[in-house]
Amino acid sequence: MQLLSSNLAGAWSQGSGAKTALVNPATEAVVAEVAGGHDLGAAFRYARDTGANELAALTFAQRGELLAALAKAIHAAREELITLAIANGGNTRGDAKFDIDGGAVTLSHYAELGASLGSHTLLGDGEPIQVGRTARMGGQHVWTSRRGVAVHINAFNFPAWGTCEKLACALLAGMPVISKPATATALVAHRLAQLFEPLLPKGVLQMLIGPAGTLLDHVTAHDVVAFTGGSATAQMLRTKVLTTGARLNIEADSLNAAVLGPDVEVSSEAGLLMVADVARDMTQKTGQKCTAIRRVLVPEAKVAEFCDALKDRIGSIVIGDPANETVRMGPLATAAQLADLKAGVARLAAATDSVHGGTGEVTPLGVPPGKGFFVGPVLRLARSPMTCAPLNEHEVFGPVTTVGPYSGDAAFAAAFIAKGEGCLVSSAYSDDRDWVARFVTAAAPWAGRLYLGSSKMAAQSPGPGTVLPSLVHGGPGRAGGGEELGGARGLHLYMQRTALEGDASVLKSLIG
Amino acid sequence: MQLLSSNLAGAWSQGSGAKTALVNPATEAVVAEVAGGHDLGAAFRYARDTGANELAALTFAQRGELLAALAKAIHAAREELITLAIANGGNTRGDAKFDIDGGAVTLSHYAELGASLGSHTLLGDGEPIQVGRTARMGGQHVWTSRRGVAVHINAFNFPAWGTCEKLACALLAGMPVISKPATATALVAHRLAQLFEPLLPKGVLQMLIGPAGTLLDHVTAHDVVAFTGGSATAQMLRTKVLTTGARLNIEADSLNAAVLGPDVEVSSEAGLLMVADVARDMTQKTGQKCTAIRRVLVPEAKVAEFCDALKDRIGSIVIGDPANETVRMGPLATAAQLADLKAGVARLAAATDSVHGGTGEVTPLGVPPGKGFFVGPVLRLARSPMTCAPLNEHEVFGPVTTVGPYSGDAAFAAAFIAKGEGCLVSSAYSDDRDWVARFVTAAAPWAGRLYLGSSKMAAQSPGPGTVLPSLVHGGPGRAGGGEELGGARGLHLYMQRTALEGDASVLKSLIG
Repeated sequence: MQLLSSNLAGAWSQGSGAKTALVNPATEAVVAEVAGGHDLGAAFRYARDTGANELAALTFAQRGELLAALAKAIHAAREELITLAIANGGNTRGDAKFDIDGGAVTLSHYAELGASLGSHTLLGDGEPIQVGRTARMGGQHVWTSRRGVAVHINAFNFPAWGTCEKLACALLAGMPVISKPATATALVAHRLAQLFEPLLPKGVLQMLIGPAGTLLDHVTAHDVVAFTGGSATAQMLRTKVLTTGARLNIEADSLNAAVLGPDVEVSSEAGLLMVADVARDMTQKTGQKCTAIRRVLVPEAKVAEFCDALKDRIGSIVIGDPANETVRMGPLATAAQLADLKAGVARLAAATDSVHGGTGEVTPLGVPPGKGFFVGPVLRLARSPMTCAPLNEHEVFGPVTTVGPYSGDAAFAAAFIAKGEGCLVSSAYSDDRDWVARFVTAAAPWAGRLYLGSSKMAAQSPGPGTVLPSLVHGGPGRAGGGEELGGARGLHLYMQRTALEGDASVLKSLIG
Repeated sequence: MQLLSSNLAGAWSQGSGAKTALVNPATEAVVAEVAGGHDLGAAFRYARDTGANELAALTFAQRGELLAALAKAIHAAREELITLAIANGGNTRGDAKFDIDGGAVTLSHYAELGASLGSHTLLGDGEPIQVGRTARMGGQHVWTSRRGVAVHINAFNFPAWGTCEKLACALLAGMPVISKPATATALVAHRLAQLFEPLLPKGVLQMLIGPAGTLLDHVTAHDVVAFTGGSATAQMLRTKVLTTGARLNIEADSLNAAVLGPDVEVSSEAGLLMVADVARDMTQKTGQKCTAIRRVLVPEAKVAEFCDALKDRIGSIVIGDPANETVRMGPLATAAQLADLKAGVARLAAATDSVHGGTGEVTPLGVPPGKGFFVGPVLRLARSPMTCAPLNEHEVFGPVTTVGPYSGDAAFAAAFIAKGEGCLVSSAYSDDRDWVARFVTAAAPWAGRLYLGSSKMAAQSPGPGTVLPSLVHGGPGRAGGGEELGGARGLHLYMQRTALEGDASVLKSLIG
């Protein structure tokens, strides 16, 4: 059995600790193993002494060229990566492409941003301002690379995209990275580490494949920890990381909602867009997207029609081993995820009615009896969505969505978004600009992104579930309070903002 | 004896707990008392239920008008406030004006910003972008007010400025405030609370005068805590506040440095500017400024001349009760500050040579024998400043500065800045643009502000010790990792950034 190596302190090493098996979540066959016990102190020193200096010697444009090379390497190995994602992630081919292409697109976005930032290492922030009595005495804000290590702790659901999105921002910003993919689905990230290693200067990227071990023990005030995952781990990180003074970015649980505006018919272009978006979010990656729609609000008179349209989309989906080409939805990624999901669905079932799929019982295609972490799509109905605690307080991370009725009031819709206590994204589908304006003003403080579906952009919409590198990703409250991506905004986590104050012509010459 | 009231939950109340005396730090006479034991849960509810809604109904322009009214109220009560600052803060008249006028200027700055942001409640962030295949599908980032409470915990040294700078940003951003000034010097803040109360909508500003009590127990994930003070309290806040998921902004200890460039003669315009800036930072507010220069680096051949010039400035300063008009430097603010300072000076004295003032022994003017928290200006010389641990690891919060020699190398100067492990501000005085460029690039990651002194701007420079509302204030690492002010940047702590995604023309209409 292959024991996966980590790339740490300039060498590949397999670790010396207890072994953990990586399995195919459709068949439960072991596909590889990992072991802990690495010298992570050496990895931090290597990042601080070697990686940081290598990056500091590069301009934004040069760092962008590195990112372009990484994107190219992903494209060249795309089929191989897809095969690994199917074998270790429970991904269908479409799921795998979504993850892998998402990673490459994000790297390319930041490669282009690097080129546009040019041959500099200081990034200007805002315009020059006058701070003295005359224009001679000026102020200029700049961003520079933090002198520390960026520690990335990624989630199991996007081993490629998650790794690349954090990496792109940190490297372009000028911080060396130690990246830890989730163990369960590490095959893809491990292959990325192999592909990337020859393309980057020494110490710029290290990849820990396997358990975190002592990773957090080496974090100091000048480092950055960026985490995507569940709220229990997030809380541990708050205690452990923030007391060091380090920066911590968290992307955690999110009870994303979608709302059908009162002006929209289910059968209209905007209505069908919403149905398609909800169906996609339920089934793509088997609903294991942090951005997936968990809560749906529909005007009371249209609930039945909406549910029927949704059932048409999800009712006939083929579920099974994604190695089988007819399969359109694979298993959950791990046994633990399946257990969590079952507990979540049981909580929901006690407070809602079944519309489709009961509590997720399914007979998967092409799988040995009793094997695999499968669940079917589950659509529930909450008669009083605002007061349904299981709906508004627990993320169920799989192909599960609950629909509830409302009056059509924009303020109620926004309050329903808020009831999730902070989310990554929520969406509303309406062609009524006044309604949208009322909704946005009240809902925006509770969401990192608001997706506004309408008939005019239906034909080219990626849906709310797709994270775009040009828009921020993260959310307040329950979602962790973090922020990633958003073009140049994504660099700021890894940089220090400094106000320069002095002779205006000197300041001008400094930022070029 | 006057027992100061707090303004909480819409009423003035004196508290029911044990009393603490506020004293005149020059004479140790009791000037007022405070008591704890307030119902702070009621204050948070009042802010959430009443204050938040009052602010949400106001546009940026209307909130700006409120800030302008507060600034006007300070101007109208300026003499009274100065008298209170002298009696309770150990301030000279000049010190008091620096604090009080600084507060008013900051309020006015944000009043003007509010007017410029206009009749909106959403604040656009960056330009619209295209996120679909055509220009129809767009993205626009916006900032909206966080739905929570802004808790302000201020330091003893700037009861007016500190209160106003945090207040200006939070109110303009749209968050209701519960402000807690430091108890020891609360007379000025208490008077501000009285002046401001009739000028603001209900629940928008509450002021807790006295001990913090249970203040932090009511903080939730949607609130913001902004703290200025020492690193021990900062560490407690990290543990207590961050585990709730709330945002925390810290401005803590800072070992600010100043460097004389190798091209500058001490007797030149730039050289004398630096001497004046160091002397001002030693004596203004008796050195109790978080931005004051604690560490000075001078080319080896010029150290003696620099020290002589500095001694000329600080040697004859009259120290005593600031109620006496001939006095130019008052006492420290509290007995505890004096004890801390003496411990710090003792640590320094063990590792450095005395240039002036020994360890701060002084006979103050117009003070009963043995009374008051007085210390004289202390100038020390470190033969090897980079390796002098007491110099680089402990902030001595008073009229104490240490000079050390260096070769003139810009990289060494930047490394000396870095040796402080993160500061609010540091400065360099040079007319050599290449030297300045090398210094800035290497030093910027370690400072929230870099002040670049030069001959051309000498005549109109406020010095590095003055915080300007248009430039960010805060610093990495030891300085807390926070950021305040900086014009519109200062609002962001109190706002949520949201990416709006949808029909480009709808997005355009939303931000007006």
